Amino acid sequence: MLYELPTPGFSFELIATLGHARAGILHTPRGDIPTPVFMPVGTAGTVKAMTADELRAEPLDAKIILGNTYHLYLRPGMEVMAHVGGLHKFAAWDRPILTDSGGFQVFSLSGINEIDDDGVTFRSHIDGSKHRLTPEVSMEIQRVLGSDIAMVFDQCPPGDADEKVHEVALARTTAWAKRCKVAPHAEGQAVFGIVQGGISVERRVRHMAEITALDFDGHALGGLAVGENLDDTYRILDEVAHLLPAEKPRYLMGVGTPADLERGISAGIDMFDCVMPTRNARNGYLFTEGPRVNIPNAKNRLDLGPIDPTCPCSTCKTHSRAYLRHLYLAKEILYARLATLHNLTFYARHVRRLRERILVDGKRA
Amino acid sequence: MLYELPTPGFSFELIATLGHARAGILHTPRGDIPTPVFMPVGTAGTVKAMTADELRAEPLDAKIILGNTYHLYLRPGMEVMAHVGGLHKFAAWDRPILTDSGGFQVFSLSGINEIDDDGVTFRSHIDGSKHRLTPEVSMEIQRVLGSDIAMVFDQCPPGDADEKVHEVALARTTAWAKRCKVAPHAEGQAVFGIVQGGISVERRVRHMAEITALDFDGHALGGLAVGENLDDTYRILDEVAHLLPAEKPRYLMGVGTPADLERGISAGIDMFDCVMPTRNARNGYLFTEGPRVNIPNAKNRLDLGPIDPTCPCSTCKTHSRAYLRHLYLAKEILYARLATLHNLTFYARHVRRLRERILVDGKRA
Repeated sequence: MLYELPTPGFSFELIATLGHARAGILHTPRGDIPTPVFMPVGTAGTVKAMTADELRAEPLDAKIILGNTYHLYLRPGMEVMAHVGGLHKFAAWDRPILTDSGGFQVFSLSGINEIDDDGVTFRSHIDGSKHRLTPEVSMEIQRVLGSDIAMVFDQCPPGDADEKVHEVALARTTAWAKRCKVAPHAEGQAVFGIVQGGISVERRVRHMAEITALDFDGHALGGLAVGENLDDTYRILDEVAHLLPAEKPRYLMGVGTPADLERGISAGIDMFDCVMPTRNARNGYLFTEGPRVNIPNAKNRLDLGPIDPTCPCSTCKTHSRAYLRHLYLAKEILYARLATLHNLTFYARHVRRLRERILVDGKRA
Repeated sequence: MLYELPTPGFSFELIATLGHARAGILHTPRGDIPTPVFMPVGTAGTVKAMTADELRAEPLDAKIILGNTYHLYLRPGMEVMAHVGGLHKFAAWDRPILTDSGGFQVFSLSGINEIDDDGVTFRSHIDGSKHRLTPEVSMEIQRVLGSDIAMVFDQCPPGDADEKVHEVALARTTAWAKRCKVAPHAEGQAVFGIVQGGISVERRVRHMAEITALDFDGHALGGLAVGENLDDTYRILDEVAHLLPAEKPRYLMGVGTPADLERGISAGIDMFDCVMPTRNARNGYLFTEGPRVNIPNAKNRLDLGPIDPTCPCSTCKTHSRAYLRHLYLAKEILYARLATLHNLTFYARHVRRLRERILVDGKRA
């Protein structure tokens, strides 16, 4: 089934379902994105350590990457981004980009922040300078960045927030979503709404009704994996994800481990992003079909085998664990490159395999 | 003219000369090296930030890289290097490698070192552990590394050393060269002698006679660009380089700027290495046909042009100065990659152009 999305040029094709799990294609003006999909995180105009060519090349073949509004707003800043004509040109990336709204980083990264019903005042984590983000400012930044999918500006309470904080955040997130909806967007830029509500199914369902009524191009679950127990994360996923409108893509923000992705896909999620594969790579943790490899471990010292013999990435085809361990210990830049390429390839293949299973074992949508 | 070198499989083909400048080919079992040549420095088993594929690809097309005996001996260490079967396999580099002897690093990098006629005792710059290098140990390490060209273990006095230090160093370097000559080498491993003597032409010529008498496969000028005035460096180059045996390759160790390379080539040098292109790249200094670019400079902030519009490297074909400046300021790993690729490409093209000039304007050798 092909569903036209509100923004011209975007449509969501649902191909097969297996339980709540879905396999489809998100069609965008800059290219097709088979779903489920994992989106590598390109925080500051680069997926750390990677070139655009490497991201595009098989077997990684990233169809969409993420950009962070908060980071790009602070550095290089909007004057540069406007002058160069947006993030695609700046980073030499011609496939789709999704930008977040900056909300999550304002709350988690920046210094003192003051939140009110209009927006958030915060201090830069780089130089302490004072800034203000509102729904309109966030959308304007994302308009200048020219991302293919913009996210609404939301308030994401921490995992241990109390009832009252959650209720205020829900009301604000809905009000802000409405303001984001009417704010100017870039030509050919879709906008996704975000459902908050912490670990309460009741709040999630209530907020979902408010957000889905606004006719966004897709919907995200925000505020998961922000400190709550994994059982609660999975409970919300299981009980809420499949209730999101079936004819639009569903995006689980900032999650997670390979197991989390599998659980999310089973629950009906189509899109994921997380810094885990890239950050873990740089920190020495490498994903495999078997146990995770901690590359500095002494047992890799004389190991002539690859990280994962089943992996088709050029790191595994070319280099031994012994070499990677040496590069890691010597703090060589090449280590970060090789490790990142491997972990991103692992994530891409992991999600592609789960998609394949839905296509093979599922029923035609 | 094709000159067989003492080590089987190695020969030096002198094609053309222009004044003292020479264009040729150093034939080795692992491939031909057109000379003059600049050798990128791969200190610890990697040319920093680069993959072997990138080094091999046009337009960089590095025909030979350097490995550092001191660094590789300390980390990953000889057990690893022996187990993996040498540096080529370890680093997945199938073209020639030249290894230095470790002497220069022992004197410049390590903690307290004690030098005697037998060798040098020193402390690791990594963990302070105590080690001893002798001519035999250096050759044994280079044998295990399996480099295509090994360098003799020499004593390199600093630029401000006095007469007495120089004379002792000369005598030692000659005695050590003899010991290196008879020490076991790897199969198909050439060995180059090193001429010391500081900035005295008389000492250089005297030492040259001692070293060239030992029938090495090539000769290096060591102990230049170690703190002396540039005028003195150039004077020694001009007066000494062309006196080295014409039928063997001549290597100027650890030098230098693009201008130094041009001067060295004019003086009759065939081979160069230096960390300048790679280290400068990481520090924000980028070479161009015009003035050197200091990438963090504010004037690059909105500059949509490449580092050098005449450069065919993928960095210049793909990315703007504005993007590179942003990556540099954000301390992104991608910056080091893109900048290093550019600077190495600049050096490779610079030397290739000088070679072409000798071939075109020079006379057949």
